[in-house]
Amino acid sequence: MNIPESNYPRLVIIGGGFGGLQLARTLKDKRFQLVMLDQNNYHTFQPLLYQVATAGLEPDSIAYPLRKIFKHQANLIFRMAEVQKVNTETKIVSTNIGELEYDYLVIATGSKTNYFGMQDVAKHAMPMKSVAEALNLRSLMLQNFEKALLSETQKEQEAIMSFAIVGAGPTGVELAGALAELKKHVLPSDYPDLDIRRMSIHLIEMAEEVLPPMSDKASAKAFEYLERMGVTLWMGQSVESYNGETIHFKKAKPLASRTLIWAAGVKGNLVEGIDGSEIFRGRYKVNAYNALEGIEDVFAIGDVALQKGKEFPSGLPMLAQVAIQQGKNLGLNLISKAQNKTQKEFEYKNLGSMATIGRNKAVADLGKLKLHGLFAWFVWMFIHLIALVGFRNKVITFFNWSYNYLNFDRGVRLIIRKFEKIEH
Amino acid sequence: MNIPESNYPRLVIIGGGFGGLQLARTLKDKRFQLVMLDQNNYHTFQPLLYQVATAGLEPDSIAYPLRKIFKHQANLIFRMAEVQKVNTETKIVSTNIGELEYDYLVIATGSKTNYFGMQDVAKHAMPMKSVAEALNLRSLMLQNFEKALLSETQKEQEAIMSFAIVGAGPTGVELAGALAELKKHVLPSDYPDLDIRRMSIHLIEMAEEVLPPMSDKASAKAFEYLERMGVTLWMGQSVESYNGETIHFKKAKPLASRTLIWAAGVKGNLVEGIDGSEIFRGRYKVNAYNALEGIEDVFAIGDVALQKGKEFPSGLPMLAQVAIQQGKNLGLNLISKAQNKTQKEFEYKNLGSMATIGRNKAVADLGKLKLHGLFAWFVWMFIHLIALVGFRNKVITFFNWSYNYLNFDRGVRLIIRKFEKIEH
Repeated sequence: MNIPESNYPRLVIIGGGFGGLQLARTLKDKRFQLVMLDQNNYHTFQPLLYQVATAGLEPDSIAYPLRKIFKHQANLIFRMAEVQKVNTETKIVSTNIGELEYDYLVIATGSKTNYFGMQDVAKHAMPMKSVAEALNLRSLMLQNFEKALLSETQKEQEAIMSFAIVGAGPTGVELAGALAELKKHVLPSDYPDLDIRRMSIHLIEMAEEVLPPMSDKASAKAFEYLERMGVTLWMGQSVESYNGETIHFKKAKPLASRTLIWAAGVKGNLVEGIDGSEIFRGRYKVNAYNALEGIEDVFAIGDVALQKGKEFPSGLPMLAQVAIQQGKNLGLNLISKAQNKTQKEFEYKNLGSMATIGRNKAVADLGKLKLHGLFAWFVWMFIHLIALVGFRNKVITFFNWSYNYLNFDRGVRLIIRKFEKIEH
Repeated sequence: MNIPESNYPRLVIIGGGFGGLQLARTLKDKRFQLVMLDQNNYHTFQPLLYQVATAGLEPDSIAYPLRKIFKHQANLIFRMAEVQKVNTETKIVSTNIGELEYDYLVIATGSKTNYFGMQDVAKHAMPMKSVAEALNLRSLMLQNFEKALLSETQKEQEAIMSFAIVGAGPTGVELAGALAELKKHVLPSDYPDLDIRRMSIHLIEMAEEVLPPMSDKASAKAFEYLERMGVTLWMGQSVESYNGETIHFKKAKPLASRTLIWAAGVKGNLVEGIDGSEIFRGRYKVNAYNALEGIEDVFAIGDVALQKGKEFPSGLPMLAQVAIQQGKNLGLNLISKAQNKTQKEFEYKNLGSMATIGRNKAVADLGKLKLHGLFAWFVWMFIHLIALVGFRNKVITFFNWSYNYLNFDRGVRLIIRKFEKIEH
């Protein structure tokens, strides 16, 4: 793969997400040769993908070139590559651009959409795990309104303007809220000859509440916000099948909807050749040091790793903050190991969780502090702005948010590349 | 097509470019039912497309939703549609979303890349006339550097890192300058293990000078800037063939280059069914009122129209300002006609022309005033910012330019969708 030789041990990191990034930063100027592989040349700030999908932000606000992140880190080499296979015996990673030996391997490949084996849903539903998928969703949504204009019957128009979201975790809730705001503030003036009241937004959740992992107070408040904003809530419902036109539920009447957005689950992005430690939802079981047991010098961090934690007997949640903390701990442990010092077991520090539903409407659980409304919304914005990589991205996002807030607008209603769903 | 009936005559405008936009605005609140058709749902500010291609701006800075532009214009109906055919006898426009009768028809379809019949060039060269094409070019360019890293031989590496631009009009000159700045300021730190000196930028022009329509002084200065920035200038040269790997010239030795960007010519975007008045470069010949002679109630404005003007016996240039002025004049004439007043012949007022080559480097011909350097550069930026549609776009573009200027950076080095050239 044309990687120069080095006197230091080579640590290959697969994936430039939250975990991989933090690990690489922790090892800056340390005695390792880091090689980061990612299929994209940028880091994606996934928590804001839904804003790309709903025309609030352009990709450049939430994606950041990986080469730029590491331009002052001399011990890191980046290659845009798709990993095809790992051989843990010979310690070789095979990719579409060649092979690479490693001394240590860290799998930080994150997660992908999990359709739980439902092939019809996988075929017809829209995922939203990458920038390209978010852009597809943006195009499809806007195309739907253009299509609705041409529709002769009210029934068809309503099906075209129906948006069903499965999964009321933060992604589903935030997406539903953003669509409700588009409906209220943007679409009526964009489509004066369309009766936008016929648009409907459905949020479908298997549990009996929205935002199940959050506090009861946050769930109740989010439910109230969504209801007030006109989102139809289907609690305790799960999808049985979807043919691109009609959603069939396990215990409710069918719903006609041409767009089904799947935010109901993810599973680890596994790497071929690494076996033996897989369990729940296809995540790699790791020990307290994020090492894969039984395989030498291979680690996993972030969504793809399944690590037990206090209060989390079935594994830590798949969240950015877990990945970041694991990346840091693993980096420090690798340094300690090289110096023959004691390594530290990973301990997850829950910094809290939050979700935004709409203007002035957010919920936040920060330890014992439960916030909602305007103040929670400011905290949400502040934390997300701070977390964005790069000064330029912070400023552009801040400006876009301020502009959208003041003008009740969404600036990026562009269909740059048309997206057509597979015909059935 | 589901367009409501109206008591006013229906004016169908094909195309939401500079001309169509100005025409529609001129007829705001007048007694016409305007129907605008465009294959995209946005207006493209084409003069800045090259900045999208060179990672300086995101599409949302230079594209503006057409529905948003007209949201306060009650007499305009927009439909995203591709026009397939016009029947000038029955006065019907056929599109992919149905048929539409017109009382007046205005063709404002602009222009498309002209390969002058060279099929191999059409197949292997990269055009840059739309947002999607500019994004393809951005992806390809960045992918080339990733590929160059994997290359074993210097010869291959140089071919991959060679960018040839054909046509030294404003687009070609601005693109060459932007690539030279990427080479100098951005790529060396992005690709520390690549010898960026092997990257080459070639500007190929049939005439003996760059920016042929501009003053001799502007041409000479632009030439000097480009040369100083390391662009290889091929003056008086034209391309005979291109197979995706090697450019063959009519009178020079071949050049190995994997990327050929074609900015050498455009031709009118003709509409099927309108015949009889076509001449040079496939533009519709129009009279002094922008009417197509011999066809009733059909007009053409902008790039697609060929109108003779003072000092322009073979037709006015294909420029935004011509389209804008024609759109305005036609609008006023249609109002006059409805009021049985005298119509005004079109008279082109040349507001000057300019091109930017790099930081602090631009040339401008403003009547007798010939500017170059820092001041011309400021004028160029000011005029382009003012001309951008929408406050948000102006601010975001201004911020991006300031940021890029101060940091010698380009923020949008993202390969969101990979672009692969056709294999040969």
